[in-house]
Amino acid sequence: MRRNIEGCVMLEKDQPVDTSSKEPEYFHKFEHLKITRTENGILEVRFITNDGPIVFTGKDHHDFVEAFSQIAQDRDNKVMILTGSGDDFLAQIDGPSLGDITDPGEWDRTWWEGQQVLQNLTSISVPVIAAINGPATVHSEYALIADIIIAVEDSYFQDYPHLTFGIVPGDGVQTVWASAIGAYRTKYFHYTQQKISAREAQAFGVVAEVLPNKEALMKRAYEVATNLLNIPELTRRHMRMMFVAPLRKALLEQVGYGLAVEGISATDLRMTAKKE
Amino acid sequence: MRRNIEGCVMLEKDQPVDTSSKEPEYFHKFEHLKITRTENGILEVRFITNDGPIVFTGKDHHDFVEAFSQIAQDRDNKVMILTGSGDDFLAQIDGPSLGDITDPGEWDRTWWEGQQVLQNLTSISVPVIAAINGPATVHSEYALIADIIIAVEDSYFQDYPHLTFGIVPGDGVQTVWASAIGAYRTKYFHYTQQKISAREAQAFGVVAEVLPNKEALMKRAYEVATNLLNIPELTRRHMRMMFVAPLRKALLEQVGYGLAVEGISATDLRMTAKKE
Amino acid sequence: MRRNIEGCVMLEKDQPVDTSSKEPEYFHKFEHLKITRTENGILEVRFITNDGPIVFTGKDHHDFVEAFSQIAQDRDNKVMILTGSGDDFLAQIDGPSLGDITDPGEWDRTWWEGQQVLQNLTSISVPVIAAINGPATVHSEYALIADIIIAVEDSYFQDYPHLTFGIVPGDGVQTVWASAIGAYRTKYFHYTQQKISAREAQAFGVVAEVLPNKEALMKRAYEVATNLLNIPELTRRHMRMMFVAPLRKALLEQVGYGLAVEGISATDLRMTAKKE
Amino acid sequence: MRRNIEGCVMLEKDQPVDTSSKEPEYFHKFEHLKITRTENGILEVRFITNDGPIVFTGKDHHDFVEAFSQIAQDRDNKVMILTGSGDDFLAQIDGPSLGDITDPGEWDRTWWEGQQVLQNLTSISVPVIAAINGPATVHSEYALIADIIIAVEDSYFQDYPHLTFGIVPGDGVQTVWASAIGAYRTKYFHYTQQKISAREAQAFGVVAEVLPNKEALMKRAYEVATNLLNIPELTRRHMRMMFVAPLRKALLEQVGYGLAVEGISATDLRMTAKKE
Amino acid sequence: MRRNIEGCVMLEKDQPVDTSSKEPEYFHKFEHLKITRTENGILEVRFITNDGPIVFTGKDHHDFVEAFSQIAQDRDNKVMILTGSGDDFLAQIDGPSLGDITDPGEWDRTWWEGQQVLQNLTSISVPVIAAINGPATVHSEYALIADIIIAVEDSYFQDYPHLTFGIVPGDGVQTVWASAIGAYRTKYFHYTQQKISAREAQAFGVVAEVLPNKEALMKRAYEVATNLLNIPELTRRHMRMMFVAPLRKALLEQVGYGLAVEGISATDLRMTAKKE
Amino acid sequence: MRRNIEGCVMLEKDQPVDTSSKEPEYFHKFEHLKITRTENGILEVRFITNDGPIVFTGKDHHDFVEAFSQIAQDRDNKVMILTGSGDDFLAQIDGPSLGDITDPGEWDRTWWEGQQVLQNLTSISVPVIAAINGPATVHSEYALIADIIIAVEDSYFQDYPHLTFGIVPGDGVQTVWASAIGAYRTKYFHYTQQKISAREAQAFGVVAEVLPNKEALMKRAYEVATNLLNIPELTRRHMRMMFVAPLRKALLEQVGYGLAVEGISATDLRMTAKKE
Repeated sequence: MRRNIEGCVMLEKDQPVDTSSKEPEYFHKFEHLKITRTENGILEVRFITNDGPIVFTGKDHHDFVEAFSQIAQDRDNKVMILTGSGDDFLAQIDGPSLGDITDPGEWDRTWWEGQQVLQNLTSISVPVIAAINGPATVHSEYALIADIIIAVEDSYFQDYPHLTFGIVPGDGVQTVWASAIGAYRTKYFHYTQQKISAREAQAFGVVAEVLPNKEALMKRAYEVATNLLNIPELTRRHMRMMFVAPLRKALLEQVGYGLAVEGISATDLRMTAKKE
Repeated sequence: MRRNIEGCVMLEKDQPVDTSSKEPEYFHKFEHLKITRTENGILEVRFITNDGPIVFTGKDHHDFVEAFSQIAQDRDNKVMILTGSGDDFLAQIDGPSLGDITDPGEWDRTWWEGQQVLQNLTSISVPVIAAINGPATVHSEYALIADIIIAVEDSYFQDYPHLTFGIVPGDGVQTVWASAIGAYRTKYFHYTQQKISAREAQAFGVVAEVLPNKEALMKRAYEVATNLLNIPELTRRHMRMMFVAPLRKALLEQVGYGLAVEGISATDLRMTAKKE
Repeated sequence: MRRNIEGCVMLEKDQPVDTSSKEPEYFHKFEHLKITRTENGILEVRFITNDGPIVFTGKDHHDFVEAFSQIAQDRDNKVMILTGSGDDFLAQIDGPSLGDITDPGEWDRTWWEGQQVLQNLTSISVPVIAAINGPATVHSEYALIADIIIAVEDSYFQDYPHLTFGIVPGDGVQTVWASAIGAYRTKYFHYTQQKISAREAQAFGVVAEVLPNKEALMKRAYEVATNLLNIPELTRRHMRMMFVAPLRKALLEQVGYGLAVEGISATDLRMTAKKE
Repeated sequence: MRRNIEGCVMLEKDQPVDTSSKEPEYFHKFEHLKITRTENGILEVRFITNDGPIVFTGKDHHDFVEAFSQIAQDRDNKVMILTGSGDDFLAQIDGPSLGDITDPGEWDRTWWEGQQVLQNLTSISVPVIAAINGPATVHSEYALIADIIIAVEDSYFQDYPHLTFGIVPGDGVQTVWASAIGAYRTKYFHYTQQKISAREAQAFGVVAEVLPNKEALMKRAYEVATNLLNIPELTRRHMRMMFVAPLRKALLEQVGYGLAVEGISATDLRMTAKKE
Repeated sequence: MRRNIEGCVMLEKDQPVDTSSKEPEYFHKFEHLKITRTENGILEVRFITNDGPIVFTGKDHHDFVEAFSQIAQDRDNKVMILTGSGDDFLAQIDGPSLGDITDPGEWDRTWWEGQQVLQNLTSISVPVIAAINGPATVHSEYALIADIIIAVEDSYFQDYPHLTFGIVPGDGVQTVWASAIGAYRTKYFHYTQQKISAREAQAFGVVAEVLPNKEALMKRAYEVATNLLNIPELTRRHMRMMFVAPLRKALLEQVGYGLAVEGISATDLRMTAKKE
Repeated sequence: MRRNIEGCVMLEKDQPVDTSSKEPEYFHKFEHLKITRTENGILEVRFITNDGPIVFTGKDHHDFVEAFSQIAQDRDNKVMILTGSGDDFLAQIDGPSLGDITDPGEWDRTWWEGQQVLQNLTSISVPVIAAINGPATVHSEYALIADIIIAVEDSYFQDYPHLTFGIVPGDGVQTVWASAIGAYRTKYFHYTQQKISAREAQAFGVVAEVLPNKEALMKRAYEVATNLLNIPELTRRHMRMMFVAPLRKALLEQVGYGLAVEGISATDLRMTAKKE
């Protein structure tokens, strides 16, 4: 999982920037991310497991911290598209791979990573388009750090794992949804594990466009991305950072606390189980 | 520096906690609240005056501070339903009972209680369901501290007393509505004493479900409450406290000021009346 | 330690306040504002250039700082209506008149004025009604500091100049729209220079009423204003200041930064142009 | 729209308020608080165990929530003095009485009480004088919610229990000290369990006056209290609430999180002990 | 989408800016301010009444709003020195001139002006040096909006009027002092009308330098000002605005509320007096 | 809805974590950082250039982003000591290496890195001790993100580069100092390029201990670090993150803006120079 330092050259040495024809190493470093880039700098980041929909693991939770940090640091990226593979955006999770979340010592790592991945995602200084190709029911906060969200007709959002495991949805999913659809819809969404369809999400103001199918979705994602490239470089970067600033602050204020009580609720399940 | 855990004993070992079969004293302490609890811990708090719709009084303003404090402290409560009696949620107010609101010395008590009742309502660490059985036109902020709001078809929200009395709606009603439906809808609601129907409130995102009649409403309230009981104890409690935290902070920031200018506007009515 | 109240005299005894029959000087001081006032204190502020729709200039950017400061200080104003002339609310801009926005030394003046005009607009302590008589595509933040926004059927909102010039929309337009329609709709609005029609703006919660034509619009604006006059003086003033407080704070936090990066993006255009 | 003021009657007309000659029930309700009040309304609250220095217990942690709520609600209190008995302000703690703090289920009660006691202490709307009669090494945040702190020459402050138990000092003690002596002194104080003498605390700006002995301390406490009574009633109350507002907000923001990670650190001690 | 820079002309080309040799009108507009400016742009603003120490009046409270607005808008000002006349900085107040502060209708004007004068003072985008030539016991918040405060040996700070009148010190004086010397010293300062000498204020961190006499004071003020002129124009301006931003925000959050409860406390004095 | 805990496996079971005996690659990756670690996990990070005092370069500005990110992610680090080499902590800067800071396009990279390095430094979840072995006159904010600062007798703090270059000190140095010594001392420090000696810094509350010489300094640094190791793992980590949270938030709020106006002031120097 370590990065091969040998191949690195100094940034801006002579300053020939990496061209898109020469791929940075991080494109191939993360098992469950398929990363590609067009010649004009549209980065596509695709969640993937064995060429199919991602099955999210504890290793991903760890990897994504570095992945989004690398993406943020690479100034050859001009716009980013975040999407899923096959029929899911992000909808499967490998519970056992997460480690023993009931052990505070192990949770501490999750606690740190969970905050850091969102700080890194919101440090990406180019516009992010989320192309929701299917259900987004696991870590949907990754989708909502995007600036523009477009979705296929039959996709939907839900927060599946937390209440299914019986633990507090405190990893930032509470924060992004409140920012997106307001406090009251968010509470109902979480307490009842409500499914919000793409159309409802559009009516609620979080999804910008609904497309009929996956082909139309990706076509439109690239169209929007290409249009964004017309915005001058610094303007485009500062728009992203300006727009994401309030969310970044809310995440900083709320996720440390949220993940702490999420961990407590997990530990309590073990304790309670023992007593029973 | 390690703590010797062996020596620890349970807190208040010898003090048998009230079981739900034995009702706490506070259930019968407050004239205009009818409080009951199911065996599994669903607390129902019903506004009531003489078995009919509540006529809100200055004594209620005082009583509710303690009532919601007691409810918050009682850990046998697992979920709370807040509702009204007869055809009103909370729609009648006994003006004279409020005392001389134009006298700053008297208002000071109102100023303190008004802040405290909202801090106490938001210190209740179990999910709150508001079941809006009819018009909520007086102190509708009590309804909106709920997590999930369901309403009968012909109910509506309005802020009746403040502009009718000619005083600033600054007791928190400004804060909860802005949190619920946004700043611009809230301003129109208050400046024009707009009636927002249950259906409109649903479209605006604050009401989660609209039910055809009162029977269906209470049936659904208990269904939702029962579902919430499936969430493990600590998870359920921490979800409530996590979700209510931003509102609690907004109330702390805004209600002291809001009630101060509400009191000033009341006093000015007397002063102006004298001059004329 | 008691104050001797007997000795008090009225403030500015010998300085007769302007009555509404005698117009204050500032009514005629600003080239592109037509200011009138009814006998009962309804102030109408109309954007205008040569009796037609305003063509916004750098001089306006400068003048409006003082204009809204004067309006705020004049306590004979009881309600304010903000509207445009002819078929535009505010939709044309004289680019060259803005000076060399790519020069940081010149931009600094814009940076200061841009913050100050919004602080002054939000220091107006009477309700503001925006009557949107046509497209509001330039500095639409002026419209959104209103409490109640009504619009003619065929009007719309857009942010035209910033992306057309290729610079960051950081002058507060980002802040008011986020407050009005939420973060995600705001990002789409800005990235894509989306036109939001009056009807859509109503569905999004920012426009309160849509009127069929300009005559109906102004008639309704005065009706609403007249109704607001029924609210007692101090109550009316404090409602405005209470409702505008959260926006005022958000503007204070965000516009200094926003205008700084807007200026940077403008300067970069010149630098980049030179390199090419 | 004017309110008919004539019809108003005094709030709770028929309910004679406790006069200071008749002691309220809560004066004698809490085992480890000795509460007395002078005729002119100076309330003295003294920590006490069997007529000597308090040994703080889990029951106190529970009782104080209600105690300070009752004190806050009693408008016959005009100024409050908070002090200790014998040679301690608050310096002994009965570890086992706290219950099993390593069990998240039990900790949850502590989590709620710990937040609530500080919200209640800061809802007391009369000036609070802390008279530090000896070491304040346990829950020194109770002392620091005072407005004016005076101390005997040989007293000192320390945070003894948290690091001695090996747990995070997150119950608000982190918040009050940062407010009092700044972030860097606070960190050193906590990481090293530093003793800060009365004189140092005065140099750091948190202690206002140092007195030679306990007699002089209490004499001065009553002198200061009596002087504060010269401030008119509403002015005195509003000064307290105005001054305590920023701290109250900081506590609301930080203590829920702080107590969560304190609980996690406690639970981890048990888990780690088992593994070893 | 690039902007054509060529067509840009200077803002207000035909409007020759005031040179420092030609004094702006506002220099002589305000009765109790003596305003002068050196050729290199050091603006001196001196509180004055009849060539002697200022006796602060209600008219000043009104005038200063505009005065500091004009100063802030005049870009020929490069550094500002704020000082007093004779032996006072600002230490006398003409109570009756303030109008009937017990009447909410009159207070409303004070409420608005009190907030606005501090927003205008903190909108001055050049460094401000306060030269404290004698006691600053009235509106000392005017001194503390400075960046650098220097004082003569025998000067001191106090808040005299508020508690002498018996009203809440809520006009911002609470905010600036908390920012300057911390929360606990501020509370003691206000509750006891403490005199803080120049030397103590230096030890507390708010006064930067203590000078032996008035001649040395003004000589040093101009030395410091001249040194600040060495900082490039935009750097100097942005340093001021960056440094004052947190205070400006705190004032926006706290002064509306503070002045509201100050007014309430004043009105209550009249009410209470009548009852007695 | 309970989670089956049985199925859980340890996170990254098969991936043996680096033990302290085996050094991670990042220890030797950054040219100007000498990184070592004791067996019990005390990480020493030393600024260095060719075995002597560091000469800070643009490459360091870039490298430190990743360096502190790697340090933060490595859970084998238990406490961190940050110090300098030879007679400087950090006091020399290679201006030309920073690139053309007057070019907004180049500055944009600095703008991003400057924010990110501070977010990464404050994401280090173990206590940080700064051992100030000599002048800290360049990027002293790196020292002040420490929890405990100790310094040799003849060391001092200053902000040398910004005003020497003529640009705004907006890279976070404004934020950490305000947090450390208050707003007024900070303004004087920056406007006058004041040198604050170790002893003064101790009196101001930011330096905890002053040591006679460098040997004593490092001996004490390791003593303090060793003592901190006695704090249980999670308690130690959470103390750091709890204590650094308010600073982290202040940095997030202020540094994006600060670096923007710093860049503007740099660009303006070029523009102004051209005009002259």
